[in-house]
Amino acid sequence: LVLRETRLIDRIRRLAGSVAVNKRASVNKAVVRGIGDDCAILRVRPGFELLVTTDLCVEGVHFRRDWHPAKSVGHRCLARGLSDIAAMGGEPLACFLSLGLPSGLPQSWVDSFLHGLRDLARSFKIELAGGDISSAKEITADIIVVGDVPAGKALLRAGAQPGDRIYVTGELGGSAAVLKRFYKGEKIKATRSSRHFYPTPRIEVGRWLRQHGLANSMIDLSDGLSVDLAHVCEESRVSATVDEDRVPIAKGADLMLALHGGEDYELLFTAPAKAKLPGRIAGIQVVEIGVVRKRSNYSSAIQVLGKNGKERPLAPLGWEHFRKQS
Amino acid sequence: LVLRETRLIDRIRRLAGSVAVNKRASVNKAVVRGIGDDCAILRVRPGFELLVTTDLCVEGVHFRRDWHPAKSVGHRCLARGLSDIAAMGGEPLACFLSLGLPSGLPQSWVDSFLHGLRDLARSFKIELAGGDISSAKEITADIIVVGDVPAGKALLRAGAQPGDRIYVTGELGGSAAVLKRFYKGEKIKATRSSRHFYPTPRIEVGRWLRQHGLANSMIDLSDGLSVDLAHVCEESRVSATVDEDRVPIAKGADLMLALHGGEDYELLFTAPAKAKLPGRIAGIQVVEIGVVRKRSNYSSAIQVLGKNGKERPLAPLGWEHFRKQS
Repeated sequence: LVLRETRLIDRIRRLAGSVAVNKRASVNKAVVRGIGDDCAILRVRPGFELLVTTDLCVEGVHFRRDWHPAKSVGHRCLARGLSDIAAMGGEPLACFLSLGLPSGLPQSWVDSFLHGLRDLARSFKIELAGGDISSAKEITADIIVVGDVPAGKALLRAGAQPGDRIYVTGELGGSAAVLKRFYKGEKIKATRSSRHFYPTPRIEVGRWLRQHGLANSMIDLSDGLSVDLAHVCEESRVSATVDEDRVPIAKGADLMLALHGGEDYELLFTAPAKAKLPGRIAGIQVVEIGVVRKRSNYSSAIQVLGKNGKERPLAPLGWEHFRKQS
Repeated sequence: LVLRETRLIDRIRRLAGSVAVNKRASVNKAVVRGIGDDCAILRVRPGFELLVTTDLCVEGVHFRRDWHPAKSVGHRCLARGLSDIAAMGGEPLACFLSLGLPSGLPQSWVDSFLHGLRDLARSFKIELAGGDISSAKEITADIIVVGDVPAGKALLRAGAQPGDRIYVTGELGGSAAVLKRFYKGEKIKATRSSRHFYPTPRIEVGRWLRQHGLANSMIDLSDGLSVDLAHVCEESRVSATVDEDRVPIAKGADLMLALHGGEDYELLFTAPAKAKLPGRIAGIQVVEIGVVRKRSNYSSAIQVLGKNGKERPLAPLGWEHFRKQS
């Protein structure tokens, strides 16, 4: 194991190096020392705070080898972490990877996984600065992304105010629609433009919102609108009403998938009613889908305003429920 | 899964909170925001650099449920990360935990695991500031520890100079001696004082060495002296000779275990020959065990000086080799 690990660490180090070397001029300068010591050393700019997020990806839970090419798995793992940085309005600085690998796994799978991760890291000019490796029964990848944000300027889940309007970027349900087709037994090609296989985290949108100071709260849509909006309401001690007519439904999806399907990695944020928001931010469509309400003692549940003009509760069912219903 | 996860996250949040609440005055102020948002927010002191380390612990590889009580597993996971911070001469600030759990695992196991982790976190006044949870086939715990160090003062693996003396803290082979007994089928009680079950990371020793500027290089002994000294030699582009008569052998261990057994979490460092080092640092014994040599083209292998006065090569066998030989 030690020898195999050493070889793999060398491989990862070369890959990580190739990020830094090929784009030396543009890779950010936060990483003072990357792979090769007991810890990585990072430099944080004066006046900035640090953001840290970890996301665990497990084979059979977050991906399937017969559905997702290794390159897509590597991309998706890092995208989850980057999306968390985007949701704070932060700038990504570096990533770390703890990797558990079954003994029979082909080296080509690991290489493609690392290439997928590296290509996304490159596109955001961040370095793979460290990690760990172990044998394991199933493929397990824990991604840690470190970012920064001007002190006190991070956009939190807490902060939504009654009367705030609720906005989402992009279109929803597209990622879950692909999974639904997989569960039906379809074969689906992993195209680069597919938001299921190669989601682009909304770093630029998060940055714009932080710089313009328009949003009161923000979260990324990883578990599904119903679950993630419930998180915002919980942390902000408010409730909300979503207008089902306004929810932007991705091609191939339906309202159920848009409300409960996960892994779209779009942003959900709230802004005061008087805030003037453009229809697009950093090229991405932004749509108002509802309003933040006061919590009442009678019903603090999130409501959906239906086409019939009546409200019904929106249970935070999320991804797993959806999967079992599909 | 979502509901189960939510409950578990609440549980972890309470545990994490209990670190902060019970020791509010003394927990360090680096964590601006911990569990409960897309990212944790940390504050880094001006003039300091950040340290980040990740360590993946997998059931059957790093621990066995029939050998290690859950509390010991939680302690050992965090100890691995803290030991990496110690090896840089750093101060721990916060930890993060990504946890993969099999569906049949009793909640009591998870609770004891978290208590073991929390107790060690408390003793170093650090907060559990975030993480992730997933179902998994086997227990998988990725520990991320974030620390800081005055800018430019971290003690690296690179830096050992020919002529430097090599030192180790404590005694070696004790942890591997326990494993050897386990492999023989013995039952062993996990006492609090056992360095196998409850290792104390050498944070204070690392701090002392950084503050006194005596060490040229440092690493923690996690994989075994032969492997870890080879890392220092590799990064420093030097070789070394270890005097077998001087290696401090733990009770129950022998020279083989002291040279190749892992998981002692002691520190190995090099210092100039003229440096005056005390026999104890922060109450821990410090012993000179050898000398750093120039790399030669003929043999860059690390040598052991035997009792017979003859040198022999010290292959970096490390833990896995030892295990297979036992």
